[in-house]
Amino acid sequence: MSEQFYTKQLPNGLTLLGQRMEQVSSASMALLVPAGSAYDPPGTEGAAAVAAEWCVRGAGPYDTRQLNDALDALGCQHDENAQSEHISFSTAQLGRNLEKVLEILSEVIRHPHLDERGFLPARGLILQDLASLEDEPARKCNVLLRERFYPMPLGRCVYGKVESLASMQCDDVRRCVRRTFTPSQSILAVAGNIDWNAFCDAAERAFASWPSQTVEAPQPQPAEGGVLHVAKDSAQVHIALACPSVTLSDPRYYAARMAVTVLSGGGGSRLFTEVREKRGLVYHVSTRYHSLKDHAGLFTYAASVPAKARETLQVTVGELRRLSEGIEDSEMARARTQLKSALIMQGESTSARASSLASDWYHLGRLRSLKELSDAIDAVTVDDILAYLRDCPPRDFTFLFIGPEAPDVSGL
Amino acid sequence: MSEQFYTKQLPNGLTLLGQRMEQVSSASMALLVPAGSAYDPPGTEGAAAVAAEWCVRGAGPYDTRQLNDALDALGCQHDENAQSEHISFSTAQLGRNLEKVLEILSEVIRHPHLDERGFLPARGLILQDLASLEDEPARKCNVLLRERFYPMPLGRCVYGKVESLASMQCDDVRRCVRRTFTPSQSILAVAGNIDWNAFCDAAERAFASWPSQTVEAPQPQPAEGGVLHVAKDSAQVHIALACPSVTLSDPRYYAARMAVTVLSGGGGSRLFTEVREKRGLVYHVSTRYHSLKDHAGLFTYAASVPAKARETLQVTVGELRRLSEGIEDSEMARARTQLKSALIMQGESTSARASSLASDWYHLGRLRSLKELSDAIDAVTVDDILAYLRDCPPRDFTFLFIGPEAPDVSGL
Repeated sequence: MSEQFYTKQLPNGLTLLGQRMEQVSSASMALLVPAGSAYDPPGTEGAAAVAAEWCVRGAGPYDTRQLNDALDALGCQHDENAQSEHISFSTAQLGRNLEKVLEILSEVIRHPHLDERGFLPARGLILQDLASLEDEPARKCNVLLRERFYPMPLGRCVYGKVESLASMQCDDVRRCVRRTFTPSQSILAVAGNIDWNAFCDAAERAFASWPSQTVEAPQPQPAEGGVLHVAKDSAQVHIALACPSVTLSDPRYYAARMAVTVLSGGGGSRLFTEVREKRGLVYHVSTRYHSLKDHAGLFTYAASVPAKARETLQVTVGELRRLSEGIEDSEMARARTQLKSALIMQGESTSARASSLASDWYHLGRLRSLKELSDAIDAVTVDDILAYLRDCPPRDFTFLFIGPEAPDVSGL
Repeated sequence: MSEQFYTKQLPNGLTLLGQRMEQVSSASMALLVPAGSAYDPPGTEGAAAVAAEWCVRGAGPYDTRQLNDALDALGCQHDENAQSEHISFSTAQLGRNLEKVLEILSEVIRHPHLDERGFLPARGLILQDLASLEDEPARKCNVLLRERFYPMPLGRCVYGKVESLASMQCDDVRRCVRRTFTPSQSILAVAGNIDWNAFCDAAERAFASWPSQTVEAPQPQPAEGGVLHVAKDSAQVHIALACPSVTLSDPRYYAARMAVTVLSGGGGSRLFTEVREKRGLVYHVSTRYHSLKDHAGLFTYAASVPAKARETLQVTVGELRRLSEGIEDSEMARARTQLKSALIMQGESTSARASSLASDWYHLGRLRSLKELSDAIDAVTVDDILAYLRDCPPRDFTFLFIGPEAPDVSGL
């Protein structure tokens, strides 16, 4: 897969990013707007999530129905959702329809109606999503873990709370949209079957007159951390834990990714072997790396029947710790191959590429080529990983348990 | 995306299918073996699922660890799982490693150790998966619906039952594997960066001496149908319903797919508009088409808070019924564009293509080109859909509810 990158910044600050991919027909867009749930004012938690729903209920010349019809008629698959730091708008369509979809997307961003009729259904959906969390303890466990692990409000549950949603008024959300929908910190990435010049022309037509303003970053409070057990009469104990890591822009990032891959990448990884294959303790166990702009962590999740929860937790934490005792060359070779193969395979998906471009720009202010990533992975040594683990030792975990009982964490 | 298809049958009956995709580096395989859970003998329900886990715990010259290491070292992402009619083995890797992965896969299929040491962990994992269903009511709802909608044992829960797993012995599963792992009804599909001749040579080396036998198809019993309410203190009422449709090989298949797309494809679809956008009743609502070899259905799922369950169910069934009253040209145009765009986008993924090749061959005994699919979608008229709905009217539903209470189904 050849890599042809393009970047351009409009005078109002909007960053345009592109990658042309040969031999595909599709093109995917990823637009990040600095309007994530971390920007929700106190008392209106969930506003960003409501905004993401509400924006597509009529915009510019389209009412709700016309907007959906227009996107459907272009064969566009789209998704709008609030994350911690951004609202993300993503679309996938054939390359030949890209500019038309972009035009509609710009109406959603710049001229959403946000009329009263659409507000209650939009808020109702977020309330539904909050309720659905109760029936998905695995997802809830990870949402609550993030909330306690990251400094508030960065890890906040994007759906807010029942009380904040119930008291939320139209104007609360309108104020958020006015304040945070701004080009200067927004990133629009496109990948696939694109004509970069035509795309830039369309983006300028759509966005050049979008007035810029600065969004003040939220001031994070110290993370809560500690241990939380949410009692629930569930069949399994859901076990989640997190420890701090380095951010995506840190030079030690690749060492962190290699450590996670040795631990949890593939069927021969340590966690899989020790927890799943040898002991049959759990069906799912994994450690994942996650990074915000200024904070990052290693997030581990497993679910086991209550009788095996303590053993599952002990073996899992034991494997996290054991990384510091050394890593074999064969493990390094496997981890390298896995990371690089996964990169190449993800590189074949236009939507994965559009997301990666936007993410690179947000975290690094530049784009990374496949070769740069591959070389950086090859360059990581065992000593690099051990040094990373000395800087970010797997301890001082934030623990989150959902289930009839919580395993004992003493000594962990 | 160009389409170069290849087919070949080995003398023992194994079917090889291939599609070369230009400009990708990856290649994906999908191997279907006629060993699905429908073939589990009475009393050993879940044997196929255990077999899928157990087969990768040592095979040919590899012990469990070596097998996982070898696949990891090739950057191979793999998945083994029991479905109704098949055990599916799927792998994704770079094209240059394809033949090496195939060699390992053939050991898993032909020479799995199935030793006692691996049995308990494999069975334990399936027990865990069965337990995890209790904590995922949405998934459980759809599993139970399929169980009651399809003739037994075709829709059976692949994980079996706690009792059948608890009493299951090594030899029960070994017998299943000996009986059902056979080339004559197996299909091996590959898509991506492939050299077809090299692939065929490797497949012949690996599989030519695999002895053939015939697997007797299970004799289905009439479906149970009706209404089942599983009482659970969940936050939402999970609502699932199914009605019969035509199979994938039926000439009316494309009319059925168009009907489902008008109903549930995209943001402008009827269900989305009426249930989600206008009324904000639920976050997720969808109707999906699903086909086994000789039976098929339209499966609808929604989850709502208990107070809105009855309205959600009524509006949803109302929309299913209203299809028969007519479909506008604009809806037809949108549905066509959506189906065709989705086809093209899926066509860019090597793993999606490998699965489609295997599925086409199983259901139709031949491969369909993108052009054939596209032409068939274009050819569907409103009258075709109305005729389909007369043949398969959305009524006589099988209902499945999980939640504190079940909505009244009288009159539906």
